[in-house]
Amino acid sequence: MDKQEITPYIEEISALVTSQLQQTVPATWDIPAHLREAMSYSLMAGGKRLRPLLVIAAAEALQGRREAALPVACAVEMVHTYSLIHDDLPAMDDDDYRRGKPTNHKVFGEAMAILAGDALLTHAFYSVVQASRHHGVPAEAALAIVEELSLFAGPSGMVGGQVADMEGEQGLTNLDQLRYIHEHKTGDLIVFCLKAGGRIASATTEQLQALETFGRAIGLAFQIQDDILDLVGDESKLGKKTQSDVKQQKVTYPYFIGLEESRAEVDRLTKQAKEAVSGGVIPQPECLIGIANYLMNRDR
Amino acid sequence: MDKQEITPYIEEISALVTSQLQQTVPATWDIPAHLREAMSYSLMAGGKRLRPLLVIAAAEALQGRREAALPVACAVEMVHTYSLIHDDLPAMDDDDYRRGKPTNHKVFGEAMAILAGDALLTHAFYSVVQASRHHGVPAEAALAIVEELSLFAGPSGMVGGQVADMEGEQGLTNLDQLRYIHEHKTGDLIVFCLKAGGRIASATTEQLQALETFGRAIGLAFQIQDDILDLVGDESKLGKKTQSDVKQQKVTYPYFIGLEESRAEVDRLTKQAKEAVSGGVIPQPECLIGIANYLMNRDR
Repeated sequence: MDKQEITPYIEEISALVTSQLQQTVPATWDIPAHLREAMSYSLMAGGKRLRPLLVIAAAEALQGRREAALPVACAVEMVHTYSLIHDDLPAMDDDDYRRGKPTNHKVFGEAMAILAGDALLTHAFYSVVQASRHHGVPAEAALAIVEELSLFAGPSGMVGGQVADMEGEQGLTNLDQLRYIHEHKTGDLIVFCLKAGGRIASATTEQLQALETFGRAIGLAFQIQDDILDLVGDESKLGKKTQSDVKQQKVTYPYFIGLEESRAEVDRLTKQAKEAVSGGVIPQPECLIGIANYLMNRDR
Repeated sequence: MDKQEITPYIEEISALVTSQLQQTVPATWDIPAHLREAMSYSLMAGGKRLRPLLVIAAAEALQGRREAALPVACAVEMVHTYSLIHDDLPAMDDDDYRRGKPTNHKVFGEAMAILAGDALLTHAFYSVVQASRHHGVPAEAALAIVEELSLFAGPSGMVGGQVADMEGEQGLTNLDQLRYIHEHKTGDLIVFCLKAGGRIASATTEQLQALETFGRAIGLAFQIQDDILDLVGDESKLGKKTQSDVKQQKVTYPYFIGLEESRAEVDRLTKQAKEAVSGGVIPQPECLIGIANYLMNRDR
């Protein structure tokens, strides 16, 4: 599936996820109005919805139901969103803007931004459980998803990668360190998406392995592509300044292996991802393949 | 059971939980050393372990197994600990000391304190799942515990209470607002402990209701007692300065209804808690009753 064919699928799921996220904290719940606003502000700030897309595409590649995957798709977007809110805080990256809008703490204050992040992370686990409560996902499968979310987003996963990234700002000396950061800070949550989608569709061990390989490869490719776009991308398309890594003296893939070699690595990883889900183990891999192509060719 | 009889039980469980918490992030996991240190620093800072105690006592009151309750007991202590780390941050209460030791961000820096809190919250859910993986708690029960942890610790629970407390610092005008803060900021997690302990021991709906009533009552009594001790307690026993609420102009139960009426309310709530678990619905309520007495009579 090429880029033109996959775009409507991506847009359809993005719209569905955005609509579902709007009601993820039921209106009937008695929660402080400002907290609700702060959570919603960042959830609705218009990301790519890449992670929810991967959950749903993985489930559908195994003929799983989209409705059953939706609560987990929303959960992973909440985890991603909380990580961005905390990442942007003055004590962390101290960013004033994200996706062209003021960051959460610039609008709601630092204390509320910390708490809105905490609330989103906690509520993500509630959302996972709803896949079982309302959509027939067996308790064992939902519990395995909870376990993997805590592993891939926790100290040995995303948070660990975040810490390594922060400590690496004093200077990385080799590509292995950078790869560790990319694998955990970005890659782990992407691997989670693929496996969770698989579990919702009752994947076999072999299928889960194929999805994990796919996720690991596109996760790293995605991050290298980000590094490349920061160096040579179009600011108007990206919605953010390019060369910020250079200015912040952040080491990146192009820094270590050069631009052309980085591009070749994205190609190689994308090919590896597509091969993992082709060849029969995944019954309907077309959308996953389309997404891999789409990510490789994106300009923002 | 009176205070003298319950003390060995409390100390035994506190030691068990502390020992278990020391190994909750397996030594074999590849996580950044400073993150591991920061998580451990606050987990080992020597709290009362009240919440784990309640999980285990509730399970044992229904003849549940202590080992099966232990992962959930540890999970709730992680959630409590993360909330303290974030609470102490400069953007929140800006505290330099907790339990006589420098706060997490004073030792590890603000960024690491935020991330250590995030990691503890995430890892708590992993710990809950281990009750099912290793101790025979049915997946349905473990999933219900995950759901309630996310509810009672999330935006409609503890985080919501935290936001209300923060916003209330501009001045509360009545006792209902203060009760809302106490119920959510402290009470909800305590109710969670009782219900989770019950679920581990396969509690009936009637038993869960009794445990919830017990938890709601001692949760509020605990917080009013805190307000009282802040006003009239012994600094050397409390390990912190008294009258901090007065100095910070925080409104408390004694502020609204006076010291004597506050003490009477603690008595009334403790009596209500004990009645809820007496009378036959809970087979072995002695330790729960002992804990209620212990909390009412504590001087720190």
